[in-house]
Amino acid sequence: AYGTKEESAVRPIGRYPVPNKKDMPYDIVELMEEVERKAGFLPNIFKVMCHRPAEFRAFFAYYNVIMKKDTGRLSKADKELIIVATSAENRCPYCVTAHAAFHRIYSQQPARADQVIVNWKKADLSDRDLAMLEFALAVCRADNITEEHFQKLERHGFDREDAWDIGMISAFFAMSNRIAHFIDLHPNEEFYRMGREKGEA
Amino acid sequence: AYGTKEESAVRPIGRYPVPNKKDMPYDIVELMEEVERKAGFLPNIFKVMCHRPAEFRAFFAYYNVIMKKDTGRLSKADKELIIVATSAENRCPYCVTAHAAFHRIYSQQPARADQVIVNWKKADLSDRDLAMLEFALAVCRADNITEEHFQKLERHGFDREDAWDIGMISAFFAMSNRIAHFIDLHPNEEFYRMGREKGEA
Amino acid sequence: AYGTKEESAVRPIGRYPVPNKKDMPYDIVELMEEVERKAGFLPNIFKVMCHRPAEFRAFFAYYNVIMKKDTGRLSKADKELIIVATSAENRCPYCVTAHAAFHRIYSQQPARADQVIVNWKKADLSDRDLAMLEFALAVCRADNITEEHFQKLERHGFDREDAWDIGMISAFFAMSNRIAHFIDLHPNEEFYRMGREKGEA
Amino acid sequence: AYGTKEESAVRPIGRYPVPNKKDMPYDIVELMEEVERKAGFLPNIFKVMCHRPAEFRAFFAYYNVIMKKDTGRLSKADKELIIVATSAENRCPYCVTAHAAFHRIYSQQPARADQVIVNWKKADLSDRDLAMLEFALAVCRADNITEEHFQKLERHGFDREDAWDIGMISAFFAMSNRIAHFIDLHPNEEFYRMGREKGEA
Amino acid sequence: AYGTKEESAVRPIGRYPVPNKKDMPYDIVELMEEVERKAGFLPNIFKVMCHRPAEFRAFFAYYNVIMKKDTGRLSKADKELIIVATSAENRCPYCVTAHAAFHRIYSQQPARADQVIVNWKKADLSDRDLAMLEFALAVCRADNITEEHFQKLERHGFDREDAWDIGMISAFFAMSNRIAHFIDLHPNEEFYRMGREKGEA
Amino acid sequence: AYGTKEESAVRPIGRYPVPNKKDMPYDIVELMEEVERKAGFLPNIFKVMCHRPAEFRAFFAYYNVIMKKDTGRLSKADKELIIVATSAENRCPYCVTAHAAFHRIYSQQPARADQVIVNWKKADLSDRDLAMLEFALAVCRADNITEEHFQKLERHGFDREDAWDIGMISAFFAMSNRIAHFIDLHPNEEFYRMGREKGEA
Repeated sequence: AYGTKEESAVRPIGRYPVPNKKDMPYDIVELMEEVERKAGFLPNIFKVMCHRPAEFRAFFAYYNVIMKKDTGRLSKADKELIIVATSAENRCPYCVTAHAAFHRIYSQQPARADQVIVNWKKADLSDRDLAMLEFALAVCRADNITEEHFQKLERHGFDREDAWDIGMISAFFAMSNRIAHFIDLHPNEEFYRMGREKGEA
Repeated sequence: AYGTKEESAVRPIGRYPVPNKKDMPYDIVELMEEVERKAGFLPNIFKVMCHRPAEFRAFFAYYNVIMKKDTGRLSKADKELIIVATSAENRCPYCVTAHAAFHRIYSQQPARADQVIVNWKKADLSDRDLAMLEFALAVCRADNITEEHFQKLERHGFDREDAWDIGMISAFFAMSNRIAHFIDLHPNEEFYRMGREKGEA
Repeated sequence: AYGTKEESAVRPIGRYPVPNKKDMPYDIVELMEEVERKAGFLPNIFKVMCHRPAEFRAFFAYYNVIMKKDTGRLSKADKELIIVATSAENRCPYCVTAHAAFHRIYSQQPARADQVIVNWKKADLSDRDLAMLEFALAVCRADNITEEHFQKLERHGFDREDAWDIGMISAFFAMSNRIAHFIDLHPNEEFYRMGREKGEA
Repeated sequence: AYGTKEESAVRPIGRYPVPNKKDMPYDIVELMEEVERKAGFLPNIFKVMCHRPAEFRAFFAYYNVIMKKDTGRLSKADKELIIVATSAENRCPYCVTAHAAFHRIYSQQPARADQVIVNWKKADLSDRDLAMLEFALAVCRADNITEEHFQKLERHGFDREDAWDIGMISAFFAMSNRIAHFIDLHPNEEFYRMGREKGEA
Repeated sequence: AYGTKEESAVRPIGRYPVPNKKDMPYDIVELMEEVERKAGFLPNIFKVMCHRPAEFRAFFAYYNVIMKKDTGRLSKADKELIIVATSAENRCPYCVTAHAAFHRIYSQQPARADQVIVNWKKADLSDRDLAMLEFALAVCRADNITEEHFQKLERHGFDREDAWDIGMISAFFAMSNRIAHFIDLHPNEEFYRMGREKGEA
Repeated sequence: AYGTKEESAVRPIGRYPVPNKKDMPYDIVELMEEVERKAGFLPNIFKVMCHRPAEFRAFFAYYNVIMKKDTGRLSKADKELIIVATSAENRCPYCVTAHAAFHRIYSQQPARADQVIVNWKKADLSDRDLAMLEFALAVCRADNITEEHFQKLERHGFDREDAWDIGMISAFFAMSNRIAHFIDLHPNEEFYRMGREKGEA
């Protein structure tokens, strides 16, 4: 099974049952084992989403397309920062906690995600990063997006393809945050500690 | 090319270029031709999303998994009603217009979607449908979803699997609405007229 | 009596009783018969307001003064568009539905009102029409109206008398929307279908 | 002319010109002279509304129908309190100031209106008066009005006709507040001082 | 005891007991007697705060430091106006009523505070006073305060030390308003009448 | 001087100048040295507040009265949790960061404050702690506080004196958050790392 012992003793990781490994389709087990091997633990989103194998496949396929896309001007840390800022707006415990951890790892800036969670406008960010988050949060709030939004991005070096990338990540996590809310998905304890010191990989 | 003549003469259907058919991957062309054959026209979402073929595939694969799922208590009309109500909350012209048309076709109730767009709480809906929309809108607003939300659904005959379905559709369109906003996606003119009379298929 | 058969079989048109024709004052019956003759049916607002004859007279006298005023730059379609946009902001089923129908008839644009209901800023409107609605909605929200509001209107060709007309229509329907809300006034079924095709009168 | 000397020296009473008495229709002059004779001064709303004589007549005819109606359970002070509470919600200087003065006169409670302006829920009001204002403010905000709203009123002795009266006053001043906003109507100085002492008539 | 007879007969001045004079520490009695001697009555805030003598001392010591500071460009009337405007935003009956009275006394403008309570942006204020209140209200709402806020103040003659004074008064009353809310502190009747006529001291 | 070298090289800790130690009054220097000795560093709030020595004394005297009060049912960790939750509502970087660190130290729960910052209703808290935060946040938002608020606290074992303590801490930090906002106070880097591991003192 996929609930870690410590957690399952305390409370479930979400509102829906976590299937046993032996009942899951082979391709899903394989993907989960690979993730667990690399990360050292299996993020809870994998455990709950396999309640619906077809949706599991669709969700992670989409995630990989936008997060592992390697063209454009968004670094891995940029993408995580977008997720942290928009998920904080939606007050999503799982996504904020997991992606703040990823941001700490990728950016090697242990305090930046914490700052963004409290008040992104006052975080120690470059004007470029503030412009990126401003666009991401306008998409997050389902604002009307106008030419002015794109032009502001362009003044900080992002072209229309980058705008699409920022908007798509914000939109995808608008979905993820809401899924996490109705599943009542809890973050793995590991996330809170990851990347708190510079140099941690 | 995929812009209908009448529209392309007036204005673009969105902020990003629509690729020429000959430049698109074969699987995408095939899917679009099938949709166009069935519907009589190609909804603009297909035309703009093929700007990013990998995202096109991920988006429609996900859409099909949740919209064509045939287990559970949600009818085709129920699903469209959820989309209309949540997309109206997000003020998304494309999704409201397209899915109001689909709702009119599936429900054979020409006025119901229009009522939901203005004020879902005062629409001519059963208590069951109101409960369904109340849950969908709580997910749409990224509210904290509590046991009370699930219990209220249960009192109207929806179990936890149905709740997942309602929540997932609401979450997916939280994403779609935001994509449509940053692309500035316009509805096809055909949608406004579809299903205005009972008996139309 | 004034409830159409089909509707009265289903549910009342509002929360207050609709008086019998024979119990109503002569001048009110006369006005209602004239409206019914012209429109082909009697809009429900007439049926419910005659519960209070003195208020009926005051309400329609005021309505006629501002809606039938033929000086100034507002066309009949402009006036209806203001009503649709502000009543949508107030989520008033009756006023949105009835005046969207009137707008379709006067403008011969079957889709424009539907667009305004979902998101007026993204509707296919001229800059002049957007400026008109921006002023109307500022009044609708009871914003402080400043010289800047008037100057913006002037840049699109509206003078201060036009501003008064826009503001007065918005203010009058701020009242009407709230009356419809406490009466729980339902739109006549006829409104949903009116003017869906170009050329309909 | 109708601007008092002291005020006209300082600033205009609104954004639109106040016509000279000699240019106004006879019935309007007559009504204004009667009001001035009774009150000792002419409230500014009369001066600005005669810019549009037909609207002047419609506005005051409607006002008189609802404010001078002498059936039902609403006292003159009740009606003024509804206007004060809803106009404060809309932050309307003219209506709050004028009707707080009228409330002080009718209620002989010099502090009550001031309390309602700051925070009606904490004013020294009976449960009946709180229920009356709660209904009035629900109408003021254009909330959906449900059976529960009416039942709550009934528990405090108000029947459905009283509910109509409360709702209609709230709706009429939803209009008046907005008219005053776009005209930028200033209160007469006299209103600030009226009724500050018990026993003042 | 410190409850005036008239009030204690009607209702308590707050949710916590008012201690008897003989049970209070000597320094607090002395301060209260001095205030009462000067003002002619003892403001209720003194009566309720002595429920916690240590907090009484801390609260009034802080109050005196910022309100009796005599450097900078804020007059006594300016300070009271800031308190009135921010306490109205927080809908605090005690602070609005008491400090509106103080403002009337200090400013010799009997109507100004009443105008600010209803809608500060439309009150008869100089551009300097509007800029002062705009900064105070930005602090009151816990907005992010930027260089633009300071620059706008500077354009009206306030330097950074004045900005600190405005911000600190707004911040202190953000605290006071909330204390008054949880104590349910009622204003003394005397406040409603104070300073209604010019020339009153 | 009191700016740490690393920080002063990067940017100022706030908008106002930090005085040199030699220019500060003796009592303030003494207090700051004691704090620095105990904590290992001097929190920036001390450095910026000594710009105004009289306000420095008043601020910390008040803080000590409420935070070092040792009667009642609030533990040190409870008090810090109230500060974290309310300061997160006000999006105050300094207060959230500093008091989250203090909470980690006092509670020995390295993840709890982070959870409260994102979404206190979904944090791993007891019903008692949730009730405490619910009251604190009602005060924080300047809500009308009613008997129901107190009764809910009582059901979780808090009496009216505890309610005062909770309310007073929330009110005091409503002030502190706003001071930090207008000063643009930055947290010391040390706070981000404090208490991340259990057992840290």
